[in-house]
Amino acid sequence: MRAICLVSGGMDSCVTVAEAHAANHELFLLHINYGQRTEQRELQAFQDIALHYRVPASHTMSCSIQHLAAIGGSSLTDKSIPVTEANLHSTEIPTSYVPFRNAHMLSIAVSWAEVCGAKRVYIGAVYEDSSGYPDCRPEYYEAFNRVVKVGTAAGDIKIVTPIIHLRKDEIVKRAVELSAPLAKTWSCYQSEDEACGICDSCALRLRGFQRAGIIDPISYRSRPLYQ
Amino acid sequence: MRAICLVSGGMDSCVTVAEAHAANHELFLLHINYGQRTEQRELQAFQDIALHYRVPASHTMSCSIQHLAAIGGSSLTDKSIPVTEANLHSTEIPTSYVPFRNAHMLSIAVSWAEVCGAKRVYIGAVYEDSSGYPDCRPEYYEAFNRVVKVGTAAGDIKIVTPIIHLRKDEIVKRAVELSAPLAKTWSCYQSEDEACGICDSCALRLRGFQRAGIIDPISYRSRPLYQ
Repeated sequence: MRAICLVSGGMDSCVTVAEAHAANHELFLLHINYGQRTEQRELQAFQDIALHYRVPASHTMSCSIQHLAAIGGSSLTDKSIPVTEANLHSTEIPTSYVPFRNAHMLSIAVSWAEVCGAKRVYIGAVYEDSSGYPDCRPEYYEAFNRVVKVGTAAGDIKIVTPIIHLRKDEIVKRAVELSAPLAKTWSCYQSEDEACGICDSCALRLRGFQRAGIIDPISYRSRPLYQ
Repeated sequence: MRAICLVSGGMDSCVTVAEAHAANHELFLLHINYGQRTEQRELQAFQDIALHYRVPASHTMSCSIQHLAAIGGSSLTDKSIPVTEANLHSTEIPTSYVPFRNAHMLSIAVSWAEVCGAKRVYIGAVYEDSSGYPDCRPEYYEAFNRVVKVGTAAGDIKIVTPIIHLRKDEIVKRAVELSAPLAKTWSCYQSEDEACGICDSCALRLRGFQRAGIIDPISYRSRPLYQ
């Protein structure tokens, strides 16, 4: 069965590709540029992951939704809003939240699925141990699956979120089990040469590795210990 | 209250703007180019409608989702697939169906709504007297409203479909009641200089005017009588 995987190039999407691969799906990899700061580095990670899984170029797509940057409202796309340092104990939605971003990504994936005949769309959303984005909740994906069921001609395409209930340390362990190429991934929201170690995304990733007792293979400018 | 209106430039979206205007909303108009054949003419219609309702440029946005054309699968965006002549009695989904198109449009509108503080998103979807697209059904909008409720930070943005249960002749009559500028709209899927009169969209529009007993103010290459 054909499956589209949304691949940002980060750890979560890499493990998600590994899950789709382990399920014996024929992989179609989709990368989306939405004007985020670290786009070039993420695109490189996407290409490295596609190469690792030997996905032919005809089964990859990279596309651009620059209007999300034009709409603004997020530190990821608007350079006038600073990327805040992580506060992993806060319950507020961080400045890196891109308004309604995942709906854009899922829409592109579902359109492509309808045309290429894929019946599954994999996305590496994480809920338990996430930054608190509203579009990472399990009920969001339940609701989106209903939209896909009633809003497509096919009617049998399903969004799959294989790691939504895992903590980051469990994701790291699952990556190791599946031999996912974590050294090729990029998670930092802030820099493209060496991961900063202090943005939301670096903090969640580092804490996951620390709790799993595994050394993160990528290089960091600083590696704080997170609780 | 601020409201975003999705405005293709056709008759249905024009009446939808008229409804939002009649409800005393502060109007924000959004036009989306997705690589459709008649884009230049539709954009002109969008600008004419914005001018008619005196919407300032800062409250209008036109954006482009060219990846829908790249994904293909529709006669609207792929010139190798012919635009079929209308068969208003068929129950099949016509070739003009753009896979999952409305989800892309609604996603852009909802992202913009989150950033500009709009609480309503108006879309001129029509069900009863439509081409049979799955993403025009009332249950599709119910499902999408659930996605918006759980997937946004605001949580109180609503998609509004004021004409979804109207037949085309009722839409024409409503347009006249609200003094909507129908002469400025463009509906033809096929040509940009003079409406063809025979594509799905022209056929539905002409039949609506004929049943309402009103002369369509735009010019047609041919004006067949539709049952």
